[in-house]
Amino acid sequence: MASIFSKIIAGELPAHKVAETNRAVAFLDINPLHEGHLLVVPKQEVDKLFDLPEEDYLHLWQVARAIARAQEEVISCQRVGVAVVGLEVPHAHIHLIPIHGVHDIDFSRPKLSFTSEQLAATTQRIQARLPEVLRP
Amino acid sequence: MASIFSKIIAGELPAHKVAETNRAVAFLDINPLHEGHLLVVPKQEVDKLFDLPEEDYLHLWQVARAIARAQEEVISCQRVGVAVVGLEVPHAHIHLIPIHGVHDIDFSRPKLSFTSEQLAATTQRIQARLPEVLRP
Repeated sequence: MASIFSKIIAGELPAHKVAETNRAVAFLDINPLHEGHLLVVPKQEVDKLFDLPEEDYLHLWQVARAIARAQEEVISCQRVGVAVVGLEVPHAHIHLIPIHGVHDIDFSRPKLSFTSEQLAATTQRIQARLPEVLRP
Repeated sequence: MASIFSKIIAGELPAHKVAETNRAVAFLDINPLHEGHLLVVPKQEVDKLFDLPEEDYLHLWQVARAIARAQEEVISCQRVGVAVVGLEVPHAHIHLIPIHGVHDIDFSRPKLSFTSEQLAATTQRIQARLPEVLRP
């Protein structure tokens, strides 16, 4: 069965897409730890990040960097943290989380909730700072 | 002033080095969240990971992948998690943490303590599974 991320990639589930290339997509996390928390996901459905083909693996980190820089410009934070855990969805993904302190990257904390309008606004602000080639 | 990591790289502070290349070094975290928790660090002293030159940034992720695969082979865990936080030491570093659950990647948890002999043994077990070119 296709993962929830593959369904988002196929357009079968809605998501606030921030970036998309031929091999990767990035969208806001629906259970964010902080405003602007998003996921960078390979289109290839692989459980573990480290099992991706080399080229796709490095591409994902290149996309992650471009997005993190855009996040830092528009989201109030001390810096953008990175986490790869992958125990819940068997489709590799990189969390990019704007953080003020180490607690902002603690996944056992209660998740935040934003309205669809807020998420759309955050998406647009991040997108506006991305290179054209990464925009969906 | 040189960062604590630059002092380790220069050999001025001791560390259990697992891997080393001309641009990166990896050693066990002295405040581990799990057995085999280690740091992958660029030799260039840059505060934020995303500010590294492209080549060094991607090299670091290549080294991280090789080490994570070795960790998974020798450390009992469900998988190897990744975290980049960087609020304490102003020298970019990637945490590679063998995890059983999401709580193993929570930096607010009490840190573990191992003897020097245990750390040396863990270092050797990981190193033995690394490509020759990455060994210190």
